[in-house]
Amino acid sequence: MPEQIFSYQQLFNFTKAVFQKIGCSDAHAGIATTSLISADVRGIDSHGIARLSGYVRLWEAQRINATPAIKVIHETPSTAVVDGDKGLGLVVAPFAMQIAIEKAKQAGTGWVSVQNSNHFGIAGHHAMMALEHDMIGIAMTNASPLVAPTFSVDKMLGTNPICVAAPAGNEPAFVADLATTTAANGKLEILQRKNLETPSGWVQDKYGNPSNDPHELKKGGALLPLGGDREHGSHKGYALGAVVDIFSALLSGANYAPWVPPFPAYVPMPTQQPGKGIGHFLGAMRIDAFRSADDFKKSMDHWIQGFRSAKTVPGEEKVLIPGDPEREMEADRLKHGIPLLNMVINDLEEVASKFNLLLPKQHI
Amino acid sequence: MPEQIFSYQQLFNFTKAVFQKIGCSDAHAGIATTSLISADVRGIDSHGIARLSGYVRLWEAQRINATPAIKVIHETPSTAVVDGDKGLGLVVAPFAMQIAIEKAKQAGTGWVSVQNSNHFGIAGHHAMMALEHDMIGIAMTNASPLVAPTFSVDKMLGTNPICVAAPAGNEPAFVADLATTTAANGKLEILQRKNLETPSGWVQDKYGNPSNDPHELKKGGALLPLGGDREHGSHKGYALGAVVDIFSALLSGANYAPWVPPFPAYVPMPTQQPGKGIGHFLGAMRIDAFRSADDFKKSMDHWIQGFRSAKTVPGEEKVLIPGDPEREMEADRLKHGIPLLNMVINDLEEVASKFNLLLPKQHI
Repeated sequence: MPEQIFSYQQLFNFTKAVFQKIGCSDAHAGIATTSLISADVRGIDSHGIARLSGYVRLWEAQRINATPAIKVIHETPSTAVVDGDKGLGLVVAPFAMQIAIEKAKQAGTGWVSVQNSNHFGIAGHHAMMALEHDMIGIAMTNASPLVAPTFSVDKMLGTNPICVAAPAGNEPAFVADLATTTAANGKLEILQRKNLETPSGWVQDKYGNPSNDPHELKKGGALLPLGGDREHGSHKGYALGAVVDIFSALLSGANYAPWVPPFPAYVPMPTQQPGKGIGHFLGAMRIDAFRSADDFKKSMDHWIQGFRSAKTVPGEEKVLIPGDPEREMEADRLKHGIPLLNMVINDLEEVASKFNLLLPKQHI
Repeated sequence: MPEQIFSYQQLFNFTKAVFQKIGCSDAHAGIATTSLISADVRGIDSHGIARLSGYVRLWEAQRINATPAIKVIHETPSTAVVDGDKGLGLVVAPFAMQIAIEKAKQAGTGWVSVQNSNHFGIAGHHAMMALEHDMIGIAMTNASPLVAPTFSVDKMLGTNPICVAAPAGNEPAFVADLATTTAANGKLEILQRKNLETPSGWVQDKYGNPSNDPHELKKGGALLPLGGDREHGSHKGYALGAVVDIFSALLSGANYAPWVPPFPAYVPMPTQQPGKGIGHFLGAMRIDAFRSADDFKKSMDHWIQGFRSAKTVPGEEKVLIPGDPEREMEADRLKHGIPLLNMVINDLEEVASKFNLLLPKQHI
């Protein structure tokens, strides 16, 4: 695919300038940019700067408030509910995660459910905030309805990701960051560009029949829960996606199920709105609320080394630890730059000209 | 399959008598029996009375302590670590869940990681203890290594189930109770008895090749994580199983990964024991630590009704809510009795004669 390479700092500066142009404070623009670009750095290209123009369009449609008064509206020693005041999820989620971390310092754990927010980028970024505090971090969010539960034709859930990040000692942290679908939308886009079919169990058509067409979502079809079909455990992926929805939205008072606001600004809001905005759920567990952090991290190292030295199936070099591919990508991209597809660059050029900004020249 | 039908009370009385014969107190025998038989009632036959003889053999092998001094060895306002003193998980897990519930009353949430325990039956039973307190209940456990992570030949994880139970208002509670594998061992046993092949993505052979042989585990093969293979998301099922292991064992100081003690007493203990016994993780979140329980339950009813009225794919009558099949089974079995296969009955006859007890005559 035609692409150009940019440095992290180039993309950071441009993105931050855009967030400032829509009215974000310097502090919020910095937080939002760090959240957003963490996706590009970690190789989750579908959730990074490629979505910047989408955020701008949501702001133009007055669905995003660039100067939110984010606040705690209910709390106990280990819990809080945060009202994001229609802010960028990229800002609201780190705010909520920070509260979870503070609660965990006092009460052992902290759990924050968030209403009235917007798309928060990648779950991993928020969950990983806990690591430097010797805490386990947890992040979830609901999302636009693209997923048909087992036996359903209707799209009732988003890709509803779950991230759990746990610190290790000498080994790098364990970071499991997964959509509760067989495959996320970004993977469909890759197949679309390559003109390839999807494997079984990724999508169904608008009648609920199995399909291998990566364009199926645009034709009224749906993504499928992890498992793909009943015989392969899709009721489990569906149940996990439902848990994310309950924790993120039913505990907070956000919209849920098919009533979650869509990310594309051109898609009309659902006529029914049972809550406010979209919902997130952030958690932090202080390791030494259970056990000495040193002992835990030694055990994590031992656990990780055990998996790394497991015998592999024919044709595979090693058993991966959750977080390995993203961390390797991060090391590579921070050193060699971040490639953007020309279609993404064109999109950013439009954003640049809208705000009288200059998109940086490619780095390499 | 040849089978006989027993009433709940018949199986309860017999099981409780067996637990008393191995030395459990009246109270512990009652708790263990309620935990164990809840599986039969809910239709998860592989985890119920069919395992009673297995628990007895573990006791005979001195791997289960019938008179454990279960105690809290570390705590904060929202957390605790419990040492199960080699007791039955069927007793230790409800003890730990009760602590989680008490913590949640005070601190909003309660999270208990457990070491030095044994097999705890079905996760659902323990998680559902939270429901009557208007709390969300969470239960996980690690288990004997039967599962090969993505790209691994070696069996590094158990079927490591996760249960999340959330109360509703007029609708029955949401209860998602799932092994983090494509299919649990019990489903393989059904196919073995019927002489049928497994679908793709359930098992691999001892070399790591895909297989459809339901006897594969006995031949050195492995169960596969939810997803089945990389292309269908098995790295997600693997990551979820790993999270269960970390929460249950690395936070508590129990054994983890391939070093979890095996359930069958004839399988030797792993030579390496990095922790104590097997591990569980129990959680309780008080709904009104986030939001009025009435509002939450009204939203849950609305959520559930939305899913129930979703359009179905060709050939399916309705979209199920997690917990529906087990609840319907429970209503049926409490009314019409619990069928046991003759092979299970033979096994129970042996237990009965060992302890000079009488197995009840079939009910119907």
